Amino acid sequence: MDSRGLEEMTLNSMSLRSLDMPAESEPELLCILGTGDLGRSLGERLLQSGFRVVYGSRRLHGGSPLLSDPRVQVTSHEAAAQSANIIFVCVHREHYEFLATMRNHLQGKVLVDLSNNLKKDMYPEANAVYLQRLVPKAAVVKGLNTLSAWALQNGLLAGKQVYLCGDSAEAKQAVAQMATKLGLSVLDKGSLSAARELEDFPLKLFPEWRLPLSVALGLTAFFFFYLLIRDVIYAYVEKKDEISYRIMVSLANKVFPIVALIMLSLCYLPGAIAAFLQLYRGTKYSRFPNWLDRWMVSRKQMGLVALGFAFLHVTYTFIIPIRYAVRHKLISRIKKNKTTPFRFDNTEAWGTDSFVTLGILGFFLFVLLGITSLPSVGGSLSWREFNFIQSKLGHLTLFICTAHGYVYGWNKFLLPSTYKWYTPPGFMLCLIVPSVVLVLKGILLLPCVDRTLTLIRQGWERTQPKVDETKQTNL
Amino acid sequence: MDSRGLEEMTLNSMSLRSLDMPAESEPELLCILGTGDLGRSLGERLLQSGFRVVYGSRRLHGGSPLLSDPRVQVTSHEAAAQSANIIFVCVHREHYEFLATMRNHLQGKVLVDLSNNLKKDMYPEANAVYLQRLVPKAAVVKGLNTLSAWALQNGLLAGKQVYLCGDSAEAKQAVAQMATKLGLSVLDKGSLSAARELEDFPLKLFPEWRLPLSVALGLTAFFFFYLLIRDVIYAYVEKKDEISYRIMVSLANKVFPIVALIMLSLCYLPGAIAAFLQLYRGTKYSRFPNWLDRWMVSRKQMGLVALGFAFLHVTYTFIIPIRYAVRHKLISRIKKNKTTPFRFDNTEAWGTDSFVTLGILGFFLFVLLGITSLPSVGGSLSWREFNFIQSKLGHLTLFICTAHGYVYGWNKFLLPSTYKWYTPPGFMLCLIVPSVVLVLKGILLLPCVDRTLTLIRQGWERTQPKVDETKQTNL
Amino acid sequence: MDSRGLEEMTLNSMSLRSLDMPAESEPELLCILGTGDLGRSLGERLLQSGFRVVYGSRRLHGGSPLLSDPRVQVTSHEAAAQSANIIFVCVHREHYEFLATMRNHLQGKVLVDLSNNLKKDMYPEANAVYLQRLVPKAAVVKGLNTLSAWALQNGLLAGKQVYLCGDSAEAKQAVAQMATKLGLSVLDKGSLSAARELEDFPLKLFPEWRLPLSVALGLTAFFFFYLLIRDVIYAYVEKKDEISYRIMVSLANKVFPIVALIMLSLCYLPGAIAAFLQLYRGTKYSRFPNWLDRWMVSRKQMGLVALGFAFLHVTYTFIIPIRYAVRHKLISRIKKNKTTPFRFDNTEAWGTDSFVTLGILGFFLFVLLGITSLPSVGGSLSWREFNFIQSKLGHLTLFICTAHGYVYGWNKFLLPSTYKWYTPPGFMLCLIVPSVVLVLKGILLLPCVDRTLTLIRQGWERTQPKVDETKQTNL
Repeated sequence: MDSRGLEEMTLNSMSLRSLDMPAESEPELLCILGTGDLGRSLGERLLQSGFRVVYGSRRLHGGSPLLSDPRVQVTSHEAAAQSANIIFVCVHREHYEFLATMRNHLQGKVLVDLSNNLKKDMYPEANAVYLQRLVPKAAVVKGLNTLSAWALQNGLLAGKQVYLCGDSAEAKQAVAQMATKLGLSVLDKGSLSAARELEDFPLKLFPEWRLPLSVALGLTAFFFFYLLIRDVIYAYVEKKDEISYRIMVSLANKVFPIVALIMLSLCYLPGAIAAFLQLYRGTKYSRFPNWLDRWMVSRKQMGLVALGFAFLHVTYTFIIPIRYAVRHKLISRIKKNKTTPFRFDNTEAWGTDSFVTLGILGFFLFVLLGITSLPSVGGSLSWREFNFIQSKLGHLTLFICTAHGYVYGWNKFLLPSTYKWYTPPGFMLCLIVPSVVLVLKGILLLPCVDRTLTLIRQGWERTQPKVDETKQTNL
Repeated sequence: MDSRGLEEMTLNSMSLRSLDMPAESEPELLCILGTGDLGRSLGERLLQSGFRVVYGSRRLHGGSPLLSDPRVQVTSHEAAAQSANIIFVCVHREHYEFLATMRNHLQGKVLVDLSNNLKKDMYPEANAVYLQRLVPKAAVVKGLNTLSAWALQNGLLAGKQVYLCGDSAEAKQAVAQMATKLGLSVLDKGSLSAARELEDFPLKLFPEWRLPLSVALGLTAFFFFYLLIRDVIYAYVEKKDEISYRIMVSLANKVFPIVALIMLSLCYLPGAIAAFLQLYRGTKYSRFPNWLDRWMVSRKQMGLVALGFAFLHVTYTFIIPIRYAVRHKLISRIKKNKTTPFRFDNTEAWGTDSFVTLGILGFFLFVLLGITSLPSVGGSLSWREFNFIQSKLGHLTLFICTAHGYVYGWNKFLLPSTYKWYTPPGFMLCLIVPSVVLVLKGILLLPCVDRTLTLIRQGWERTQPKVDETKQTNL
Repeated sequence: MDSRGLEEMTLNSMSLRSLDMPAESEPELLCILGTGDLGRSLGERLLQSGFRVVYGSRRLHGGSPLLSDPRVQVTSHEAAAQSANIIFVCVHREHYEFLATMRNHLQGKVLVDLSNNLKKDMYPEANAVYLQRLVPKAAVVKGLNTLSAWALQNGLLAGKQVYLCGDSAEAKQAVAQMATKLGLSVLDKGSLSAARELEDFPLKLFPEWRLPLSVALGLTAFFFFYLLIRDVIYAYVEKKDEISYRIMVSLANKVFPIVALIMLSLCYLPGAIAAFLQLYRGTKYSRFPNWLDRWMVSRKQMGLVALGFAFLHVTYTFIIPIRYAVRHKLISRIKKNKTTPFRFDNTEAWGTDSFVTLGILGFFLFVLLGITSLPSVGGSLSWREFNFIQSKLGHLTLFICTAHGYVYGWNKFLLPSTYKWYTPPGFMLCLIVPSVVLVLKGILLLPCVDRTLTLIRQGWERTQPKVDETKQTNL
């Protein structure tokens, strides 16, 4: 491989001396076993990427549009497998046995297993491992199984990430080159033992959303029953008021903002904990505890769940004036001439307007954060922009939303009537975590603390190991 | 091609023994005819991807920033064409004749036609076909015409899908390799006869939105006139009430939710029809009728149009209390002491609050569905996640929105005053299709039906063809 | 390079005669100096793309998960650098000196500088230039520095655009091929003197948002103080009314729509100016003045800022009925029996409802425009679709929003009481620019003007230069 590397490059950059040359550059022939949806879509797509395709099939769908293409042949399984080096197995795992019967036609071939199962752990071994056992002399490559027939047909492959695994490096490289030609971006996940993992990819169901959704559900349930007791049951027991109709909207509109605010602060709490841990340890090179790692990873989803609850809170608030109960209260208050606010209370006007304004601004910033978390928007941000939005703007949002909560209770903290049955109201409980997060963040922003933290994050360590004189910090 | 395949792979993975080697790896030279916006942007982009560029031009724009790059040459058309193998024709079709005059300089070259027209069917033959006729000895490749000068300048090509067609496989392969180096993902659409199709790509105007928008328009018009007659004209004729002002907001806010709900149910109706058709036929291998295929393809757009109408409905609802007519009614009702609800009706409160809650939850889920239909969000979902959202969450949304409609009319179904001029109110009409869809979906969820359908979708057929003993189902 | 070009292509399309061949295709070995976050993530990612990796490190993190992979070696800096041709420097610039000490091990190697700085202009020369000076016999390539450890770990590289620069074309090509294998799309930014530019990429902070945000801030400040004087201070001075509470919501809800409408019209003004400039000059080949270019470039951001203000306006409007001040006014009006609207004013109902309807429709279209400006949505539009949305739909939105403003003031233009202290109200001021833009657009839509403009944009020039007879217009 002496001087050929560079020469190679030259050749590699395409060149086309003359078109009158003999057509020895015939495109490569690939074999597809199985003519189902996936097999046909894959074949069509391979043709479009410049390959030739031979189908192996037991039953020939005469008149299928695909077969009209001159570059497509349809023949028996054995003949098809014989003629190509890469063979796509587009058959359900339940019918792999027929491949064992044609073992000697498959010797030395690359078998690409694209199969998926309907459920996890349907079979004791992964489909690809089973296939390799059936045809031991072929090189089985598991992969491309995240591509759907629909995506293949609609040409949605450009820049998509796919995964491969297999025991033969050559076979994987061959499949990787083919996939690259299809516009896919390939990741090698190692030996065939990773096949199970790859087969589970299309079956995963929002794994990263489980923790945030569980937390949200737990908080919702807790605050729902807490407020049910404090509001509806308290009124019924102590004042014989039947206000159960409040459950649907009023109660929900108390639970939603509470959960939204707590979830939002839970996005920023792990970052603060991690910073204090780094400060305490004096290094960034020790690993965080597992629970903290898991928490950090689910911050984005936590924020989006919080945004969902905030959205519900906002919608419920907009709808307030058209509710029957609200209109009834207004009318009957006027009729009964009771507690009429003849005097305009300027402080009250400032207070409620500030409350509303803080809520609107907080929601606006929250929506901005949500938009930047869209893959296509977030992906176009520079590192500093991403940092600015998720850290600075995020904490500002938390600050404004927390202030929204404090202004709501500004004149209620000291009223004894607030503490029904000696319990604090929901909004007080929900202000605890955000306040803690903001105080922690405030401490981290102190110049002396901030300077130390920046140094640590650049690789500085308080107890520098005295390995040798040429110190170095790594990116 | 015996043992060289693998050897090739080795060489292909880049290697750079030493940089002191002779610079025989000079980047390939490409020719661009025409120095307009597109020509200049393309040249700049080619330079950035490591090519050298020679411009063929009649008039030399001295002082153009591009020309300052040492890797760029500008010369006559003939000399430029002579020096490169791939020639980009960045000239309007109207001026292709000059290419015929330099025919012998173009012999054996690859001519890439990037041109577009202002309108469909401006010329009897496609630009590329015309070009091929002018220069029969060159290999014309049509393609890359979906790239704009703007996208080229701003480096927005990464992972973008482009199309090629042409009669010479070698020429297409050369252009495809060049395009791949630019970060593009290339799809071969076959021979030069596909050029017209490619030239129409940049001219298409929401073809997949036409059906949904027509349906939406038809439904809107129908329900607008239906409700105009029932509400405004009825009141005028029977009670001499002039309530035409209601057209702007009240009537619109009746039409929008009706159309939104019907459109949403029309998203899920074709899926149910297809399932019943598969159950009836006992196989998934027969094609659906064309109207069903077309309907299935436009489901996403139908849902998004429905979401637009739902958004309008929600906004119109929020605005209700600040309307002049509503405030006037409230005030005059209190003044006139007429129909004052002295007694608080608990059932009414529960009813309206349930109505509002169902509406909010339905809209919330609907927005979620809309967000997951964004390309960048939907593309990051696994197959099962996509399925969960579009099928489970979608039907739940339809169910909640339909319930929203039923609760609205809960005490109106049996009132004779509801049926003005013997016509049912709009909300009753709009509940028909959603109810049918939900009933059909309910039937499909019955265990026995579901089991059969799953089998069919895995490839099982009720009347298994007795071709041979090795049965197989395809992916 | 005679007949080998085509032969090459053939070989290039992968082929795998037999897997029993000697494994001479061992994947290339790459060296990474530094085992920090970035170094480890990069190594893991390179393994997944089929490379082998050798780490050069002073201190060996025993038990690190990465090192368990058999394809990874860890050794001394010198040995690691010796064994590979491409060397990634994943060390902070502060510690580059140690590379000077191992100069002779680095001779003829490709050094990839991935470093970033915390701030702009921290050092007199770019990191990569400094590195090249330290190790003059190596070929330094600056690049890939926009990749974060996080993106590398999560496999978010597919289709991402990265930049390279360096003085050796061979070295750049080698790095580009490596990056292409990682799924990245590479842009060559020229010689090493561009390194500073590349190092500033991750540090840029919304440069294209600065102009729109400054304009928005200026407009907001101006109209805030203008309306503060006209509304709050005027009332206090002339009528001794203390209505300062209005600042929070009422005043804000006047400022936001004004700024939104002006910003929206400022999106479409530069297009109109450019068109008139082209008409006046009679050619599209002269460059626009710099201020116009800069304005044109920031149109998208201007529109999005306007959408933000419109969103705030809408939210503030929805919240009106639940404000204390509004409810107080309603109740006290009824109590005092003052100015009671006993008679229902049909014109007033039509007027306010039209006002509301125009606002809702305008906002709806505005949101549509915003959605299509998302990269993943906009990127999937054809040229004509993009044009339709941004031009036709955009001007329609501007028209409707402007009409919304005119209807608001429909009966106020001629009232003397509107002109407090002889100043026009805010909504009149804000209608000026949109009206001008719409008039200009109207002129441009006149058939005779439109025809000339289309001709000019196709390359026609009023004063055709008489260069030679074969005229040609360029794409």
